[in-house]
Amino acid sequence: MEIETFPNPKPGREYVIIHRNPEFTSVCPKTGLPDFGTVTIKYIPDKLCLELKSLKYYFLQYRNMGIFYEAVTNKILDDLVAACDPLEMEVQTDWSTRGGMNSTIIAKYVRSGRKNES
Amino acid sequence: MEIETFPNPKPGREYVIIHRNPEFTSVCPKTGLPDFGTVTIKYIPDKLCLELKSLKYYFLQYRNMGIFYEAVTNKILDDLVAACDPLEMEVQTDWSTRGGMNSTIIAKYVRSGRKNES
Amino acid sequence: MEIETFPNPKPGREYVIIHRNPEFTSVCPKTGLPDFGTVTIKYIPDKLCLELKSLKYYFLQYRNMGIFYEAVTNKILDDLVAACDPLEMEVQTDWSTRGGMNSTIIAKYVRSGRKNES
Amino acid sequence: MEIETFPNPKPGREYVIIHRNPEFTSVCPKTGLPDFGTVTIKYIPDKLCLELKSLKYYFLQYRNMGIFYEAVTNKILDDLVAACDPLEMEVQTDWSTRGGMNSTIIAKYVRSGRKNES
Amino acid sequence: MEIETFPNPKPGREYVIIHRNPEFTSVCPKTGLPDFGTVTIKYIPDKLCLELKSLKYYFLQYRNMGIFYEAVTNKILDDLVAACDPLEMEVQTDWSTRGGMNSTIIAKYVRSGRKNES
Amino acid sequence: MEIETFPNPKPGREYVIIHRNPEFTSVCPKTGLPDFGTVTIKYIPDKLCLELKSLKYYFLQYRNMGIFYEAVTNKILDDLVAACDPLEMEVQTDWSTRGGMNSTIIAKYVRSGRKNES
Amino acid sequence: MEIETFPNPKPGREYVIIHRNPEFTSVCPKTGLPDFGTVTIKYIPDKLCLELKSLKYYFLQYRNMGIFYEAVTNKILDDLVAACDPLEMEVQTDWSTRGGMNSTIIAKYVRSGRKNES
Amino acid sequence: MEIETFPNPKPGREYVIIHRNPEFTSVCPKTGLPDFGTVTIKYIPDKLCLELKSLKYYFLQYRNMGIFYEAVTNKILDDLVAACDPLEMEVQTDWSTRGGMNSTIIAKYVRSGRKNES
Amino acid sequence: MEIETFPNPKPGREYVIIHRNPEFTSVCPKTGLPDFGTVTIKYIPDKLCLELKSLKYYFLQYRNMGIFYEAVTNKILDDLVAACDPLEMEVQTDWSTRGGMNSTIIAKYVRSGRKNES
Amino acid sequence: MEIETFPNPKPGREYVIIHRNPEFTSVCPKTGLPDFGTVTIKYIPDKLCLELKSLKYYFLQYRNMGIFYEAVTNKILDDLVAACDPLEMEVQTDWSTRGGMNSTIIAKYVRSGRKNES
Repeated sequence: MEIETFPNPKPGREYVIIHRNPEFTSVCPKTGLPDFGTVTIKYIPDKLCLELKSLKYYFLQYRNMGIFYEAVTNKILDDLVAACDPLEMEVQTDWSTRGGMNSTIIAKYVRSGRKNES
Repeated sequence: MEIETFPNPKPGREYVIIHRNPEFTSVCPKTGLPDFGTVTIKYIPDKLCLELKSLKYYFLQYRNMGIFYEAVTNKILDDLVAACDPLEMEVQTDWSTRGGMNSTIIAKYVRSGRKNES
Repeated sequence: MEIETFPNPKPGREYVIIHRNPEFTSVCPKTGLPDFGTVTIKYIPDKLCLELKSLKYYFLQYRNMGIFYEAVTNKILDDLVAACDPLEMEVQTDWSTRGGMNSTIIAKYVRSGRKNES
Repeated sequence: MEIETFPNPKPGREYVIIHRNPEFTSVCPKTGLPDFGTVTIKYIPDKLCLELKSLKYYFLQYRNMGIFYEAVTNKILDDLVAACDPLEMEVQTDWSTRGGMNSTIIAKYVRSGRKNES
Repeated sequence: MEIETFPNPKPGREYVIIHRNPEFTSVCPKTGLPDFGTVTIKYIPDKLCLELKSLKYYFLQYRNMGIFYEAVTNKILDDLVAACDPLEMEVQTDWSTRGGMNSTIIAKYVRSGRKNES
Repeated sequence: MEIETFPNPKPGREYVIIHRNPEFTSVCPKTGLPDFGTVTIKYIPDKLCLELKSLKYYFLQYRNMGIFYEAVTNKILDDLVAACDPLEMEVQTDWSTRGGMNSTIIAKYVRSGRKNES
Repeated sequence: MEIETFPNPKPGREYVIIHRNPEFTSVCPKTGLPDFGTVTIKYIPDKLCLELKSLKYYFLQYRNMGIFYEAVTNKILDDLVAACDPLEMEVQTDWSTRGGMNSTIIAKYVRSGRKNES
Repeated sequence: MEIETFPNPKPGREYVIIHRNPEFTSVCPKTGLPDFGTVTIKYIPDKLCLELKSLKYYFLQYRNMGIFYEAVTNKILDDLVAACDPLEMEVQTDWSTRGGMNSTIIAKYVRSGRKNES
Repeated sequence: MEIETFPNPKPGREYVIIHRNPEFTSVCPKTGLPDFGTVTIKYIPDKLCLELKSLKYYFLQYRNMGIFYEAVTNKILDDLVAACDPLEMEVQTDWSTRGGMNSTIIAKYVRSGRKNES
Repeated sequence: MEIETFPNPKPGREYVIIHRNPEFTSVCPKTGLPDFGTVTIKYIPDKLCLELKSLKYYFLQYRNMGIFYEAVTNKILDDLVAACDPLEMEVQTDWSTRGGMNSTIIAKYVRSGRKNES
């Protein structure tokens, strides 16, 4: 499914956009049981911004997909970078407790030729 | 509407002023439904400070205006920079949940010829 | 799907058992979009107790089922009362924000001939 | 504007439905400035339940209406009782700080001939 | 100073009005040092409601007045009952730490001939 | 192992003693994996009080014992009632998340011939 | 040491006074190590109120005294009832963690011939 | 009024001292109404430390003084720097809500010839 | 016992993986009494990721092992570095209160020839 | 009194040890009244670690000692550095409210010839 974008309304200024989805759910490929987590997207747009409703439908695609924590975090980052070609983007996933433990994965993209400012 | 200012009472010292408005509301141009958020203004004044009551009335102008998150954040920054010509200013907007997701936008201005200190 | 039970280990004493599932999800029949909520089961067992793993699989059945808040709460109460025939049972569902509003539904069963003790 | 309802899916059982709207806003008739509050509706349905989307649009009608705390709370209770004829209903409004003070109003309806159980 | 009132907009219904003032301050008659507290007024109006701005100015009168915790709580209750003749009223004062200890005083009025329902 | 007691220092007065152990652990008989929970003991002593250090060693006995939530809660209540013969005692166990769900069990004893006051 | 009192400024009204001391410390008679806790006094005065500074010095007497949780709670209640002869008084002590467990003791006095209202 | 100081007990070591006064109050010069805030003083002493009781009386001088947020913050910094000649000092004031907005002011002093380390 | 690993699904990108185990327990070698803590593993994988279930069983090995805070933290770091050869890894242990005090230990590994970025 | 130490179990690695004592109490030399605070010790050990039980007894020595905030913080730092000769150590004391104000003192030691990394 395609992720829609719209033109950045302030292209000359480097500013930060954050979207949080506390209702992310996918399926554990090992047990077939659902995983629940919060996905946070933080990026500096260049020419394009992510359209919110389209982003929501993008996340819904994972509802019945079997995929591991590390893989889904990197895949979301790759997909969203491809969709809006940002200057920087970071994806963080925070997962609810499984087997008494809980996990967080943080992956970051910085456009080539650009110094990571963090 | 004009945003009033008053002379900075300590012009020689670089200090920080923060104003938070947790009662900001505008209208989504797509759905026509109201958006609710908290707007935080953080700046280092030069010669002028923003007058609080005038700032409040400035925010009230958005109550029935249709405007997107990214646009309104950058517009507030532009308007307030124009009003008081600060050394630095940052505008952050934190929006309540829509479609199960919530967003934050952070835009910053640093006067030309000045090194960003953050 | 059948909900499993096991014999109450202390049948002569009226005591309270509470199970909370903060990872309940079903589908809104109107929009087709997922709903997320916490389901809390509170009951006084008679001869049978609800088996936890079986209860978890029972909740999973709703993952892709279209059903309204009021209906699903009452259906869970009916199904679990039928499964373990308790002296009393209360089901509470707390739903995450939709359209800027959030809801809670609380339904209670008391075995006929028994005075509700609240 | 009419508030829509739907048939109670479990009419024989007395259960509780709670809807919270933390994004309520109206206008102070004295100052013309906006008021912000949370409205909580708690009721025991008889034959009809309040439809959520319709309830949301009902609340939106107050956005530019001048009305006092005490009046709006009682008016919401009257309107919603008229819409769904419940066994009991309670409306609570919690208002944000004005002049250093904040307020809460709680009004309750119990159908005539019925003993208040609270 | 007189406390203003306005006619109860729903005189036939017994409902609850709560006003909280977290910025109350008076002076300790023993040490001459300021005391700080939160005053909460909770009442069921009969024919009259307390006007908020007038209530705020009433509280300001204590700013430089020397008076003990127990006395000020009872005096506020007496003054406000005299002002609006409610069915019931409760005044609670919560005081910040002095000498490593903090205090709360709760006083209640119920109109004669009426059974306290709390 | 015996649970030690000491004479109630105020036998004529009915008062409440609460002990909380947030470090309780036992073993799930089904999976062999450890369970973790908080055990709260609340009682009105008659002639004897539970000695704290002895109570701590009593709880340690469960560290490697396989036992279900419902059984262990009732067993602790039976053991402690036998040890100190109180007027009333309540045992509550709050268990950490397993399979996305968490549980609480509450069991109460009231000495025969005594009216439950709660 | 004597606990000072002062005349109740509103003797005809039954109202509640609460004093909290989060800095109470005594010594464990068994180990010689210090115990730390919060003492909360809640009472309905008759003719006399407890004077706060005197109460603070009363608590300081326990700083180097060896005494058990149950004993000190009942002794404080006895001492303060003797000092001000209230209609009702409740003393609650909440103790910090020892050996992984923490405790609370709650003792109450109601003047003879008076019905406990709690 | 003079602010008292005492000799720094460890003059050779650069360490940090923080004092917080959550009970600061002054008067708005525009409305004549009281303002409430928390003042935080953070400094690295050189030869002198601020005496706490004297600092408290210094703050009390503002109780009935009309002064704006920005001015009072810078004045406190100037006064306290003059009193104890520190290596560094920062004053932060956090103000309670006025007109639905709340503010924070942060001003910092670094002794001339010294590099700001923050 | 061996700790299982799986191939890093995104080997070219430096990203962060965090696993928290709030149910860690070992035994104090001095007193023989159990210790309870939270263990947090934070690492940047190279070619291998730690398998979660295997990690859980690895932690279970400490349940009846006598080992000090400082030793167990460093041992976990050594074992997990050996298992997955990461670019960086940090182990933090937060321990519950013993004798009125609580402790935290933080140990970090950075692969030789690599600059610590933190 | 001597503070005991034990050999660092991982001398080649620079790691952080934190001990918190929320039950510290000393006496104000001016008023003779007790002060209460939390002491936090954070250090990087070299050859020796602080033994916890010995540290607890060290803190107990202050229970009846008259000493000011600034002095006690620096003295604890000096004593503990002398006891275990660490690479770095920081002592922070957070004091409960006195006269409506509360304080924090932070002192740090870095071994000579070593660059402060903080």
